[in-house]
Amino acid sequence: MTIRIAIVGLGKIANDQHIPAILASDAFEFVAGASHEGSYPGIAMFRDVDELLAADVRVDAVAMCQPPQVRVDAAAKAIRAGKHVLLEKPPGATLAEVEALVQLAKGAGTTLFAAWHSRFAPGVHDARAWLAERRIDSARIVWKEDVRRWHPGQQWIWEPGGLGVFDPGINALSIATAILPNHFYLASGTLEVPANRAAPIAAELNMVGMNGEPVHAVFDWRQQGPQTWDIVVETDDGTLSLTHGGAQLVIDGTAREVGPEREYSDLYAHFAHLIAQGLSDVDRTPLRLVADAFMRCRQVQVDAFED
Amino acid sequence: MTIRIAIVGLGKIANDQHIPAILASDAFEFVAGASHEGSYPGIAMFRDVDELLAADVRVDAVAMCQPPQVRVDAAAKAIRAGKHVLLEKPPGATLAEVEALVQLAKGAGTTLFAAWHSRFAPGVHDARAWLAERRIDSARIVWKEDVRRWHPGQQWIWEPGGLGVFDPGINALSIATAILPNHFYLASGTLEVPANRAAPIAAELNMVGMNGEPVHAVFDWRQQGPQTWDIVVETDDGTLSLTHGGAQLVIDGTAREVGPEREYSDLYAHFAHLIAQGLSDVDRTPLRLVADAFMRCRQVQVDAFED
Repeated sequence: MTIRIAIVGLGKIANDQHIPAILASDAFEFVAGASHEGSYPGIAMFRDVDELLAADVRVDAVAMCQPPQVRVDAAAKAIRAGKHVLLEKPPGATLAEVEALVQLAKGAGTTLFAAWHSRFAPGVHDARAWLAERRIDSARIVWKEDVRRWHPGQQWIWEPGGLGVFDPGINALSIATAILPNHFYLASGTLEVPANRAAPIAAELNMVGMNGEPVHAVFDWRQQGPQTWDIVVETDDGTLSLTHGGAQLVIDGTAREVGPEREYSDLYAHFAHLIAQGLSDVDRTPLRLVADAFMRCRQVQVDAFED
Repeated sequence: MTIRIAIVGLGKIANDQHIPAILASDAFEFVAGASHEGSYPGIAMFRDVDELLAADVRVDAVAMCQPPQVRVDAAAKAIRAGKHVLLEKPPGATLAEVEALVQLAKGAGTTLFAAWHSRFAPGVHDARAWLAERRIDSARIVWKEDVRRWHPGQQWIWEPGGLGVFDPGINALSIATAILPNHFYLASGTLEVPANRAAPIAAELNMVGMNGEPVHAVFDWRQQGPQTWDIVVETDDGTLSLTHGGAQLVIDGTAREVGPEREYSDLYAHFAHLIAQGLSDVDRTPLRLVADAFMRCRQVQVDAFED
């Protein structure tokens, strides 16, 4: 039976990724939207989640694509109304609010899915399988992009709870926590916060795995020219390079065939599977690392940044 | 059989609380210390945890009383050596490192105890029991003290991972998470950070419980004169006031008899119980709220503070 799905927050990520993936899916039917901005031809539109839930439109599931600062309230209302809920990344602005949603979904018997889209990048599965059988000696994460190019006009990312450069950086952490076999944690680090902003524009994290292996990450939003989304892992049996945000996998200099990019198609297939099985999937590990970074790192003020 | 215990970090909290509680306990025998500073008459002293673990002194358990920034390494070594470990609050400088210790203790089959001493304050047990049967309408936490009086010379509290005013504030959060029946989470807040410091000197947290009830907290380290460590909870059946850090309980204007202060005695009795039963007790909820506060709150710079 087709899952009738609504989207809350019809901004950039909904239009670029969620709507095309839903329209291409046999499992879902796109039936409604709720947003202060945007609309979609032929789709019932509501001002907010309250209007959506009160309306005479049958909805089985809701994808939450609004900024994280306002997500928990809408998600809680949808779960209380018995809807299955997909949370765009990050799943919330705090860890404790995600815990609240997990409790609510358990009580309601609905599916809650914290959707880490980068984990569905083509090379992630094979990278994890290859690393699982090897000793990790070190990992280096370099995630450098141009915020003006990827987040035009998104002022919420610079506000508290918007995470700043951790908005893309958490994608790297979602991949690293998926492919590295050992748990790792933050030992020290630095956040660079522009004088006119509430969130960091760059970060350096010195992390360490359970066997003492270093896991080093550099995030920067001031990268012009070529963009960098790379994870390089040294093992006792060669070097793995997962680059282009997880789309390309090179092991010891040899490129592996990993198939085409279909992150959001696979993500929605997983959501349909969870609903069919009556399961939830809410991994807080990447957001926990980010919260740790805000708590543990030294903040330094850098030049004001205008986008 | 008596549990032979060592203390790592012989600073203020070890001398003020841990040593007296251990000496007064029938369950424990104080056999060794490891510290860059301090010593204790008749007790074998080592420079650090490595020397302690390599020495010819039988040790069953280790209490970690050093600053949180250096705790994880020592705790990991003690657990790997098969020791039961007590972690002073906060249990670590990050959530992920506490998770690492939990994994290690599980693997080693040892007891790990995150000791939230304020939960052993005299009024906490009765407050929890009374609130469990009532509807919570609101809670207000006010935790204001003079950092110069309570943390003389402790520069680590101002460094990243030292938590600043959350070092005492997390005691309030450890009580609130124990006595309030509903899960609650941070919605917004402000951290005041002195111009010459890396950690906040004051904080205001707007939190919310699962039924929408407000849970408001104010922490301040600049309080002179009388000190304030109060939690006031409004319910559908009267007002509960847990004051003096949990030592006094007043319900609807009537003081309840809660017995004398014996936080660390009860804390060590619980540690002995956990060891005897082969259990661990590592609640991360208070530290998670603090990590959320660093991630979610707006930081404002305030006057430089010299202690």
